[in-house]
This record gives sequence, structure tokens and C-alpha cells, in this order.
Amino acid sequence: MLKNPSVKYRPFAPIALSDRTWPNRTLTHPPIWLSTDLRDGNQALIEPMNVQRKLRMFELLVRMGFKEIEVAFPSASQTDFDFVRSLIEQQLIPDDVTLQVLTQARDSLIRRTFESLQGAKRAIVHVYNATSPVFRRTVFNLDRPETLNLAVKAAQLMRELALRSPETEWFFEYSPETFTATELDFAKEICDAVLDVWEPTPEHKAIINLPATVEVATPNLFADQVEWMHRHLARRDSVVLSVHPHNDRGCAIAAAELAQMAGADRVEGCLFAHGERTGNVDLVTLALNLYTQGIHPGLDFSEIDEIARTVEDCTQLPIHPRHPYVGDLVYTAFSGSHQDAIKKGFAVQQPDTLWEVPYLPLDPADVGRTYESVVRVNSQSGKGGIAFLLERDYQIALPRRLQIEFSQVVQQVMDTTGKELAASDLWQLFDWEYLQAVTPLKYIAHHLSEVGEKQAIALTLQAGDKTLTVEGTGNGPIDASIHALNLGIRVRHYEEHSLSQGSDAYAIAYIELAIDSLPSSLHGVGIHPNTVTASLLAVLSAVNRLWQTADSQTQTRLIPRGV
Amino acid sequence: MLKNPSVKYRPFAPIALSDRTWPNRTLTHPPIWLSTDLRDGNQALIEPMNVQRKLRMFELLVRMGFKEIEVAFPSASQTDFDFVRSLIEQQLIPDDVTLQVLTQARDSLIRRTFESLQGAKRAIVHVYNATSPVFRRTVFNLDRPETLNLAVKAAQLMRELALRSPETEWFFEYSPETFTATELDFAKEICDAVLDVWEPTPEHKAIINLPATVEVATPNLFADQVEWMHRHLARRDSVVLSVHPHNDRGCAIAAAELAQMAGADRVEGCLFAHGERTGNVDLVTLALNLYTQGIHPGLDFSEIDEIARTVEDCTQLPIHPRHPYVGDLVYTAFSGSHQDAIKKGFAVQQPDTLWEVPYLPLDPADVGRTYESVVRVNSQSGKGGIAFLLERDYQIALPRRLQIEFSQVVQQVMDTTGKELAASDLWQLFDWEYLQAVTPLKYIAHHLSEVGEKQAIALTLQAGDKTLTVEGTGNGPIDASIHALNLGIRVRHYEEHSLSQGSDAYAIAYIELAIDSLPSSLHGVGIHPNTVTASLLAVLSAVNRLWQTADSQTQTRLIPRGV
Repeated sequence: MLKNPSVKYRPFAPIALSDRTWPNRTLTHPPIWLSTDLRDGNQALIEPMNVQRKLRMFELLVRMGFKEIEVAFPSASQTDFDFVRSLIEQQLIPDDVTLQVLTQARDSLIRRTFESLQGAKRAIVHVYNATSPVFRRTVFNLDRPETLNLAVKAAQLMRELALRSPETEWFFEYSPETFTATELDFAKEICDAVLDVWEPTPEHKAIINLPATVEVATPNLFADQVEWMHRHLARRDSVVLSVHPHNDRGCAIAAAELAQMAGADRVEGCLFAHGERTGNVDLVTLALNLYTQGIHPGLDFSEIDEIARTVEDCTQLPIHPRHPYVGDLVYTAFSGSHQDAIKKGFAVQQPDTLWEVPYLPLDPADVGRTYESVVRVNSQSGKGGIAFLLERDYQIALPRRLQIEFSQVVQQVMDTTGKELAASDLWQLFDWEYLQAVTPLKYIAHHLSEVGEKQAIALTLQAGDKTLTVEGTGNGPIDASIHALNLGIRVRHYEEHSLSQGSDAYAIAYIELAIDSLPSSLHGVGIHPNTVTASLLAVLSAVNRLWQTADSQTQTRLIPRGV
Repeated sequence: MLKNPSVKYRPFAPIALSDRTWPNRTLTHPPIWLSTDLRDGNQALIEPMNVQRKLRMFELLVRMGFKEIEVAFPSASQTDFDFVRSLIEQQLIPDDVTLQVLTQARDSLIRRTFESLQGAKRAIVHVYNATSPVFRRTVFNLDRPETLNLAVKAAQLMRELALRSPETEWFFEYSPETFTATELDFAKEICDAVLDVWEPTPEHKAIINLPATVEVATPNLFADQVEWMHRHLARRDSVVLSVHPHNDRGCAIAAAELAQMAGADRVEGCLFAHGERTGNVDLVTLALNLYTQGIHPGLDFSEIDEIARTVEDCTQLPIHPRHPYVGDLVYTAFSGSHQDAIKKGFAVQQPDTLWEVPYLPLDPADVGRTYESVVRVNSQSGKGGIAFLLERDYQIALPRRLQIEFSQVVQQVMDTTGKELAASDLWQLFDWEYLQAVTPLKYIAHHLSEVGEKQAIALTLQAGDKTLTVEGTGNGPIDASIHALNLGIRVRHYEEHSLSQGSDAYAIAYIELAIDSLPSSLHGVGIHPNTVTASLLAVLSAVNRLWQTADSQTQTRLIPRGV
């Protein structure tokens, strides 16, 4: 049994702000967005991103429309330092994007940080020290004046170093780390003292960032804290007031929303909420929450699955199937009454009028998704599922998105026949839909070879009455075959498993492919004793299925040259 | 680019409640908990639970301390009907637990619902109809009086059927479905009309449940709606005011917390937030949020991993590694400065005094977890990770929890030697720690056979200078071997993959085992060309590693009889 917590945990003490104004306000415009995916998000990964992945994430953030990106903690690691240097030296930073980097309030680290930024057109240097009683006492053994002095010294050095490099337009940011656990009067005192050094103006503001380093209270209390700071900061008109919520109590989204109502101008967070422990606030949910209130967030999520897969690749961590706006299941209806209501809603929904489809707060098409209804293939719920039957009788463990895709195929048949389906019926359908998808491109043979660290492939295909061989290289056989085909398709997901135990087992490979001109991705499947052959069959199955659903223009793009 | 949403989405209109009181309140006691894991949670699963899984989930909920459990939608599926019957007929419901079942407000469904409950000592019948303008217009084609009449008729039938079965103590619950999108005056009108039929008293209350069927606004507006109902409902003293938040905007936890401050007495939700689309409010986070404020939630999470694995098994859906209080990564520190502060915090933390360890809002030990710091094995972040090096050079894809476990082993070595480690050093450590864990039990041979649908195994082991053969049956070889060993151990997780491509590949199996008397689970690993042998080696590796860390009493339990 859980212990009695009353001796061990203290309720968070509310602050006296009975004249708070935020509960009467609503959100009317997006905040200034700061992505810290490459810093706070990255430092909490089991495998931090290498330079290549960092670059891929940076390019994604720029494409989405982020104008302020915290890219590194350059004084903490050589990788981070080098990454900042390569962004600057290779001129990879668009003119309207400002780099931000983090540093602790320590002399040598601040100097190293400025070094990393030499030659940048514009940069935000973000300095922090922890200000709460526990940190002052237990971690640093500093009293309030000493803690304040640390921040002021750092602020002075930053000002001095900035003056020495006038070729860069410098912006400064200060975070009283563990703000939520800091006495408010001290938080104000230390922020004001830092601002007194920096002397920001309404034309050239400084950023004061209030982190919920650890979320310690209900989100209304965070809003009270932010409103108090908003009303008490000395140079408020020269300050961009920023928040940086973490999600320890599962309320980071709410905290960020209420904080904006309380006066915050800017939000720091990560895509899909990466970051230490429970993560940072999720900027995707926050932005799409605005969107569904009629406010353009200024960020682009029109291909949300593409964003999701890139982030999953870069972070090597999954996005939960129930994650708002993006999870595999959030546009899926399982219950009959929901499906019925949604159907009626779609029937009366007109294009470009108010969105009013029941149970769908967002039109899935706005983010490149589609609504899906998942059918039970027989009435005995719990044993009625497609995936269950195929796994039980055919050892096929369908990836989740493929389950949903195949469910649509099954539904069409059931709508036509009105019958319940047995496992053997499902297998026939599955075989026909995926394994027999061998036109226009049919696998004949392949040959592998190594070219340095790369894998080369020669893939022989039959297309109509022609036989042709295409060649390509890549990280592995699948990548090489995608390059060999050269059809502008991308791999979104790949899985493979054996169909039985023992060394003579057949392998089944699943592959999810996307092509620019089609709204959603499609799966292909291959089965073969050779795991490589199985994966190539899966690639071709997916290409053929894409071809079958495409318009004639896209179909032409899906035929390799030489046919 | 995302479209301009201002023509398509409407901002949620705030309600006039400038004299709201909830922002000045704090939470002081837990709500009445209602778990709808077996109903709302279950209906949104790709594979709904079968009776066996439903029973396992029910027993878990009872063990955790839930007193009100929504177990089914009996009129909607035979499985659900049968499940309610078997709970009643097999007398599986503890005296202090009340079953709840859901029904739509339709005559035949209500009758069928009461049928399912015949013989129950106590039951809550939960009836709903959708009340919002879009549903009235688009889905049902009913005006306000007709919608109200539907609810009143249902309420009358329920009262009548209850009077006919006086052997059961009946409680009633009404939900205006899509409450958050319903005009408040109409929500009050319809709830009051239903209550007029039921005539509840302060001694025998009715439940009015306000669902955020779809989350449509910031959580403060939900709190305003709840406070408005709390203040305006006609028979408030005879009502248990309940809320049922969904998580479409990622704010369900906040909505439930603020709603309690606004007057709600009861919360309906699911463990780890299962349910339609983005899920229901997560009762685990909600309860532990109370716990860390010094308020006992009245539910038991002292073995949170056990709860997590059971729910994952029953739902066949994962819990995200960053899920508050339970995710694999939430008690893990990656950054050096965090690790340093936590270390200092632990050094001064006294038992049974106020918990003040930096960056850890909850003492992991309170929920059966441990704090973990993840090391980088060399300074080049991004290529420094253990998992990265083992995968790159040895094709070993460690499961996430094993990565964290092995990280501790590596850290001990690094703390001793102070050296950076190469991939070959890691492989040696890994081999020594997992593959050479062959005492006290060493694999000699195994023999498989089939007994009906079951898998039987005879497993021959060497223990010291004795050789013995143990026998067991199970769903598969691993399950059979666990039964054969009969040591009171449980499998938490199993993964296996090939170490190279081709039909002659070696397989590596990972297994996570738990035993009651030890706080955390441990992993074992086996490598063999035969996938079955690999998994048996993994089981024995885990048993041996458990033995090595156990006290002498537990060690005795970990030796099979006959040795």
C-alpha cells in the first residue's frame, strides 16, 4: 500500500492573487514559439542525436516555420559546439531564423558559448541559474544575495562579450531555473537585477523565461505565478515574457495555455513533448489547440505524419497512439454509435464552412490524415478483431497502422456481403490485397554487393512483357532498392518477423511507403524464406498498391525509367 | 501549409461567470473514483479484451482500491452481457465494490441492461443521451423538448424496472453526453428533469455526470461550466456531481483537477488514459498528483510497474516512456547537472521527512521504482550511447528497460576505472553480466512436446554437481519453462531478434523477470541459433541474475525442488 504522504509531501502553497485576471481572458493569437528539441529534448534521449540527425531535425523545424530555435548547449559537449559551428559556417540558418543556445551562469562556460556563436548574424544567449530554496541550500550552498550575484555577474560578462562582437545582433535570455519552486519576490528581484545589467528597451527586448523545471502544482497556480511576475517585473515593456513548462503532473499544455492568458508572450517546448523525465510542453498540441479555436498558429502541420516519423527517427522514441492530433488512433472510431454519428456529420458537412463533425475536433484532412472506422469482423468482441485472428491462425503480427489500413479493406467486403468473416476469409483478403499486388512491377531476382560502407543492389523486375534491372545503393537492401527504383517514394516504417520458429522459417516483411502526391501512405507486404527478398517483395507490393490507387499522372511517376 | 482556420473553426465562447470561486480553492481530498477501463477504455481498443482479460483487469482494479467500476455496456455486446453475468453469478464482486454499467436512453437497451444485473447486490445504472446542438440537429433530428423527453422517459423506465427488483440496491447516473458543447441552461434543464423522476435524497443520491465527450476548450472553461452546474442544479444536496474528461486537447488532467475545485465530487477515467481517440483522463496521474500534494488518493500504486504491465497486456497498447509517474524514462536523469543535483539531494534526504530531492517530484521508492542515471560511455554525445555502440558493432537491439538496467552496470565500471569505454569493452561487460550468468542454474538440454493446445517442456539443468530435469506446460516454450521451474517468478517482457540476416542467423532473446520479494525486475539474455534455446537461456540468465542479487531467503526460493 502507498504510504501516508502527508508526512512526506507538502501541498503547494497558493499565492495571494485574488484579483487575478487570467480566468476572464481567452487566447487570441499564437505565442512566440521557441523549439528546444535540439537542446532540452535532445539531452534527455537515450541516444542523443548525432550531427546528421540534429541537422535533419533543424531542417524540419525551419520547414515548419519556427523562427527561434534553441539548437545546443555548446559549452557542455563538443558535438553541440560543433553543431553550432557548422550551422553558422555552412550558412544553414535562414535569414528570418534566430539561433538560441543555453549556458549555465559560469564564466568559462559563457565564454565558450560566445566562441561557438562567432560569425552568427543574430543569436539569443540563454543563461540560467537555479533559484529555489532547495537548490540554494542543497546543491549550491549559496544564500539569496550570493545566488543573485551569480546571475548578475553572468549578465555582466554576457554584455561585455557581446560588445566585443558587434557583427552579431545579440539577444539575451535569463531563466531563474526551478522558478515554480522559487519565492516570487526573489524571482522578481533576480530577474530585475539581470535586466538592470542588460538595460533592454521596448525596441530591443530581453527575454525573461519562467521554467516549470519541475511541475509542482495545478496549472492555475502556475498561471497565478506568471500573472504576478507579469504585473510586478520592473521593465515589463522591455521584456518578452517566456514560459518553459515541464509535464511532471501531466498538465504542461494547460499550464502553457493559462500562462499565456496570464501574460506570457512566448512558449518554449518540444515537438511531441520530448525532454527530461516527462518531457517539455508539446508544441504540436499547443499549436493545434489554437488552430481548432480559429487561430492560425503560424506553424505548419499540414503533413503531420511526416513530422511524426521524422521526430521518431531523430529521437528513437515512439509517439503514443493516443497522442492528441497525431497518434495512430486519434482519428479512429471504434464504437458503432460514434461511427454512425460521424457518418451523419460528414454527410452534411460542406467544404469551407464551420467544421461540425461529431467526435472529431479537427478535420483530419487539415493535417494530412484521414478518418478511419475500425470494424469488428464478428460480433464476439474480444475475439472479433482482424489482428487477433490473423495472429492466432497465421502468426501474422500486423503493425498498428497496417491493422487500421487493412481494416478498411475488410470493411468494404463486409459492407458488400454483410457476413461475419472467419480467419481464413481474412487471410484470403490479406493475400489478395498485399501479396498478390504484383502489377505493374513484379519481382524476378536481386543481387547484392558492397560498395565501401554502402549496400548496392541490382533488382530485376518484370513490368508487363518487359524485364528490366535497376541499380542503386543505400544503407541497406531496402534503402538501396528505393534508390534503384527512383520513384520519389519514401519509407515511413519497416518491420519484419519470422512466421514460425526454427531456422527454416519464412519471414514476413511490412513496409509503409509514401509519395508526395498522395495524401496518405500505404503498406506493402512480402513473405519469403530469405529476409531480404521478403523486404523487397514488400517494397514492390506497396509500390503496386500505391499505383492502383493513384491518378494517371501519379501512376506515370510510379513506373521506373526504362519500362 | 495549414489552411486559414478562422473560416472553419469557431473559438469556444466563454461563459459569464466572473464571480467564479474555483481559482481560489485547492484540492484537499480525493474524488470518488470511477474506473471505466472495462467500458470506455475497452471499447476503443483495437482488440477489445476477452472475458479472461476483462477479469484480469477487474481484479487489478479491485486490488488497487476502486470501489466503483464501470464494467460493461451489456446491451451492446454479448461479451459484455456475459461478463456482467459471470461477475454476479460467480460472486466475484467484493462487498464494498459497486458495479456500474452503461446504457443508451432506449427502452429495449435499458431492459436488457437490467436483465444483465439480475441478482447483483448493488449496481449503478448509467444512462446517457447526447444533448448538444450538433447532435440534436445532425445525428438525432430532435429539438430540445424531444431530447429532454427522451431522457425523462428513460429515467422513468429505470425507476420502474428498479422497483421490480428490490433485491438489488439500485443507484442511477445520468450523463448529458457532449455536455461541454451543450448550452448550459439546457444541460441544467435536462439534468433537473431526470432528477425530478428519480427523486434522489441526500441519503440516497443520484449521480449527474458531466462528460467532456470531446475536449473543446481550455480547462478553465470546463471548470467554469462545472461550477455553473454545481451552483445551479436544483437538487445539489442529493447529487454526486461527476466529471468524465477526454483528452483531445491534452488537458484532461487539468480539466479534472480544476473541475474538482469547481465542485465535482467524482471523476470517471481510465488507468493510463485509455478510451476513444486521445483517451479518457488518466486516473493514475490524477491520483499521484494528489499524493505528491500530501493527500492520500485512496488507491494503491506501490507497485506501479506491475499495474503498468498488466494494463499493457490487457489493452495490447504501450505506455509512453515519458508518461507521468510510470514511463520508463521519468525517474531517469540524463544530464550531468541533473545527476549531480539529485545526488546531493539524496545525500541529505532523511527517511520520513519532507521529500526534497531535486528534479524528482515523487520518491520513486513509493511506487516500487528506482532512480536511474543514464551514463554516456564517452564524451562524444550522440555516438556515446551504450545502445548505439552495441547495435552498431554487435547488432544487439537492447529493449529500453534493459538499456537502462545495463547502463547501471556500465556506470559502476566507469566509476571504478574512470575510463571511456569502447564498443568491445561494452560487449565484454554485457557478455559477462548476462551471457555468463550460468550459476546456480545452467542449461543442458530441452525437449518439447504438445499436450492438446498446450506446449510441454522437459528442461534439463545443471545445478552445482547435480543434473536434473524439470517439466511443465504452458502457452509456449517460455511459459512452459516458467511453470517447469516453479520458482514464483513472472515474465514482464520478452523480445527476440536475429543477430544477422540469413537462415543460419543466431537469435538473441531478452527476458525481464520479476519475483515478489525483490523491488525491481531483472533481465536475462540468451544467444543461440535455435530461437527456443535462446529464450530458455534468457530465462535462466535472468533467474541466475535474480539469485545473485537476492538475500539468502529469496535465494533459497530460486532453487528448483530436487536440487
